[in-house]
Amino acid sequence: MAVCADDFFKAANLDKPRDTIKSKVGSNVTLINVMQLPGLNTLGISLARIDYAPLGENPPHSHPRTTEILTVLEGNLYVGFVTSNPNNTLFAKVLNKGDVFVFPKGLIHFQFNPIHDKPAVALAALSSQNPGAITIANAVFGSKPLISDDILAKAFGGEGDN
Amino acid sequence: MAVCADDFFKAANLDKPRDTIKSKVGSNVTLINVMQLPGLNTLGISLARIDYAPLGENPPHSHPRTTEILTVLEGNLYVGFVTSNPNNTLFAKVLNKGDVFVFPKGLIHFQFNPIHDKPAVALAALSSQNPGAITIANAVFGSKPLISDDILAKAFGGEGDN
Amino acid sequence: MAVCADDFFKAANLDKPRDTIKSKVGSNVTLINVMQLPGLNTLGISLARIDYAPLGENPPHSHPRTTEILTVLEGNLYVGFVTSNPNNTLFAKVLNKGDVFVFPKGLIHFQFNPIHDKPAVALAALSSQNPGAITIANAVFGSKPLISDDILAKAFGGEGDN
Amino acid sequence: MAVCADDFFKAANLDKPRDTIKSKVGSNVTLINVMQLPGLNTLGISLARIDYAPLGENPPHSHPRTTEILTVLEGNLYVGFVTSNPNNTLFAKVLNKGDVFVFPKGLIHFQFNPIHDKPAVALAALSSQNPGAITIANAVFGSKPLISDDILAKAFGGEGDN
Amino acid sequence: MAVCADDFFKAANLDKPRDTIKSKVGSNVTLINVMQLPGLNTLGISLARIDYAPLGENPPHSHPRTTEILTVLEGNLYVGFVTSNPNNTLFAKVLNKGDVFVFPKGLIHFQFNPIHDKPAVALAALSSQNPGAITIANAVFGSKPLISDDILAKAFGGEGDN
Amino acid sequence: MAVCADDFFKAANLDKPRDTIKSKVGSNVTLINVMQLPGLNTLGISLARIDYAPLGENPPHSHPRTTEILTVLEGNLYVGFVTSNPNNTLFAKVLNKGDVFVFPKGLIHFQFNPIHDKPAVALAALSSQNPGAITIANAVFGSKPLISDDILAKAFGGEGDN
Repeated sequence: MAVCADDFFKAANLDKPRDTIKSKVGSNVTLINVMQLPGLNTLGISLARIDYAPLGENPPHSHPRTTEILTVLEGNLYVGFVTSNPNNTLFAKVLNKGDVFVFPKGLIHFQFNPIHDKPAVALAALSSQNPGAITIANAVFGSKPLISDDILAKAFGGEGDN
Repeated sequence: MAVCADDFFKAANLDKPRDTIKSKVGSNVTLINVMQLPGLNTLGISLARIDYAPLGENPPHSHPRTTEILTVLEGNLYVGFVTSNPNNTLFAKVLNKGDVFVFPKGLIHFQFNPIHDKPAVALAALSSQNPGAITIANAVFGSKPLISDDILAKAFGGEGDN
Repeated sequence: MAVCADDFFKAANLDKPRDTIKSKVGSNVTLINVMQLPGLNTLGISLARIDYAPLGENPPHSHPRTTEILTVLEGNLYVGFVTSNPNNTLFAKVLNKGDVFVFPKGLIHFQFNPIHDKPAVALAALSSQNPGAITIANAVFGSKPLISDDILAKAFGGEGDN
Repeated sequence: MAVCADDFFKAANLDKPRDTIKSKVGSNVTLINVMQLPGLNTLGISLARIDYAPLGENPPHSHPRTTEILTVLEGNLYVGFVTSNPNNTLFAKVLNKGDVFVFPKGLIHFQFNPIHDKPAVALAALSSQNPGAITIANAVFGSKPLISDDILAKAFGGEGDN
Repeated sequence: MAVCADDFFKAANLDKPRDTIKSKVGSNVTLINVMQLPGLNTLGISLARIDYAPLGENPPHSHPRTTEILTVLEGNLYVGFVTSNPNNTLFAKVLNKGDVFVFPKGLIHFQFNPIHDKPAVALAALSSQNPGAITIANAVFGSKPLISDDILAKAFGGEGDN
Repeated sequence: MAVCADDFFKAANLDKPRDTIKSKVGSNVTLINVMQLPGLNTLGISLARIDYAPLGENPPHSHPRTTEILTVLEGNLYVGFVTSNPNNTLFAKVLNKGDVFVFPKGLIHFQFNPIHDKPAVALAALSSQNPGAITIANAVFGSKPLISDDILAKAFGGEGDN
């Protein structure tokens, strides 16, 4: 089948608000990766819209194969990432509309809408055609099957030191 | 000097309209690359806002080291890219707000605002921390010093065949 | 200064047991990366010995830029990694001495010594000269400064769904 | 089917002059890429012979995924490339037999035979198994279908400034 | 077929001594690459156990696509690699149990057990899922068919100078 | 210091025959790499002219970081490379003027001029700005200091089997 312009196009409706009500954390990620847009194949980039309910968040997560660069389209966001061992420094910032922030490859990061009565919207670009996303709460405490309680208790029970 | 959150942040005002009046082609590109945002170093991604006057365009150009993925924030855009020799096929599309389009690495592409009374705005992500941009008209017909007339006449005088 | 054989050598004592008593989780990682061994520069690989106390663990963590391949030198290990969204499948296995297991780039993984009266030892290779390690408990619940309680409560309070 | 020596071999006749008469620009490129020589697969290199009629040229073009290094086998060549925005500096040079010149990845470049009564020949190596070539005149003014006159007039009508 | 934990696992018995009696050079390499362990695909790493008889050696060889990092599990090893033209410097070292040594990508290297009455064992990691190995004696003097005597005599007959 | 056209240019005289008399193997390699031509930096390619005396050879060697593609400018060449373990298959071919041959990354290869009364010339491109070259005879039997006789005798004394 011949390649055509439609292989490089997606009527993604990235301008339209997404529902954040069904989300327990108050956010909704609309990712346009190579599965949505075949023309991205081998090209190493993808795009996402993120909607945040008032006081909603995109909870701590990481992308196993990608850096993310984000700009705020609507509202405000408190964002941050944590560096590797041994420092685990939190680099965080309050973003206004139009600000840009970078989350380096593989690091745990989050975005939070600190405003109680206004939604927020961000657009993010990712340096992979299939970035993947690991929501820490789900991967660590909600995997299928679950990681055994003993392992989690030892890891999360104390202050941790490793 | 210690690295800090501000190395990963830029108050880029990407939400603010840019002036397109001084541009002969009716567009204005605001690029946030590694020179603007040091935290992008080694991370292979950057972000740009593009403003288009009514009937304005981002004229035919290429990025020597990057793929571009673009979404329309305001208005409409007629966009396209041309494939390599020997076919030189134009892949083009009219984009509405929220649509997404990909311009593969190194190919010549353009965006044009077809509406005579409304500006347009796009946000684009690029797969390099320093993508570079070659505006064809400027590089071919406006280099410093100029490429000699003989060379350009032979190249652009006829239909071309090479 | 001339390069010499010692730039490619480290008397790392990887054969010697490490102390796991000071570790709250009962493990100790001895990593030989480019900071320990300058000859690794540009070469994309490093090596680590991991000691596990009886019932000790290398708690859930990820390497932002590397795949890990591990073999058990002494004892037994229960190991696993969790895939990305949306499945969050746990791939886990009990390893005996001499078995080999792979933890793909960027995914959260762990190793646990299930034996109550015997230590365990593993040797791991990593596909980066500077792999980095993010211990999830420390990065999420022990960063400096701390991620705010509100953000963590929302992320970890319920089942999570994002 | 077993791999054999012939997969790494091509009787390419790169020593034989090519016809430049049928070319409106007076040149002829003989490219040996992975389609000609299957053994190049995954190996990131290819080779080309370029013949130039007296006063012939390889007109302004770019390779979307490759750097080119060229040496003159016969005659003389006036060669050049133009840097990215905002400078658009022309780096040009007259080459004699045996000289070597580099055209960096993705930049627009050309070669011109300045001698009115002697052909020229060059051999070029390219850093991709499938470098691609975009002849600017053909891609911009000869695409199928054509880029609309309005877009081209605005881009090429004035001095350009973007 | 669904991917599962066993795709990332190999009961490789890397703790078990291998027979070195059938080897004329007194060594035995057990390589766990992507053919043994499908989960390594695209991940760029592999692992090997090497057994050395008393006075046995892993003779001069190179890996066409990989760096190697090695640690001694049992016994002692005299190891070395030779740099490229023009210096051909031998970087060599006697290793004790627990020491680590690096053999940079593509360089000729060897390991030799200098002890007349004790075997040695090493574990090596390689920066490719399919590193390949070229044993110089076999490739140069034992290829199928043989390289002609004339070529070898001229290359190896004198001191060489090229 | 500003970059200029001369950074991308080398008056390399690749058209001029090189002296092969001082070479014990009857060949002479003129390599244009990043040390000769600074503009090659980061661009991953280089170029070489190789002169062969009658019955001269470029003896068995490998490039630790590069693939080579070669074409014959003058005379004939008998060329070949040997695959990795366990097959060690010799892929060889007689080349005429204008033929092209590929030597894959890291494999041992050679070129031999089979004609007793005519020199030969080849031009080769290499997929690295600093390919390196390991002449097997020199690296294995002529390193400084020498690899010990015991090691070499065991490796090269018999048929080899590892």
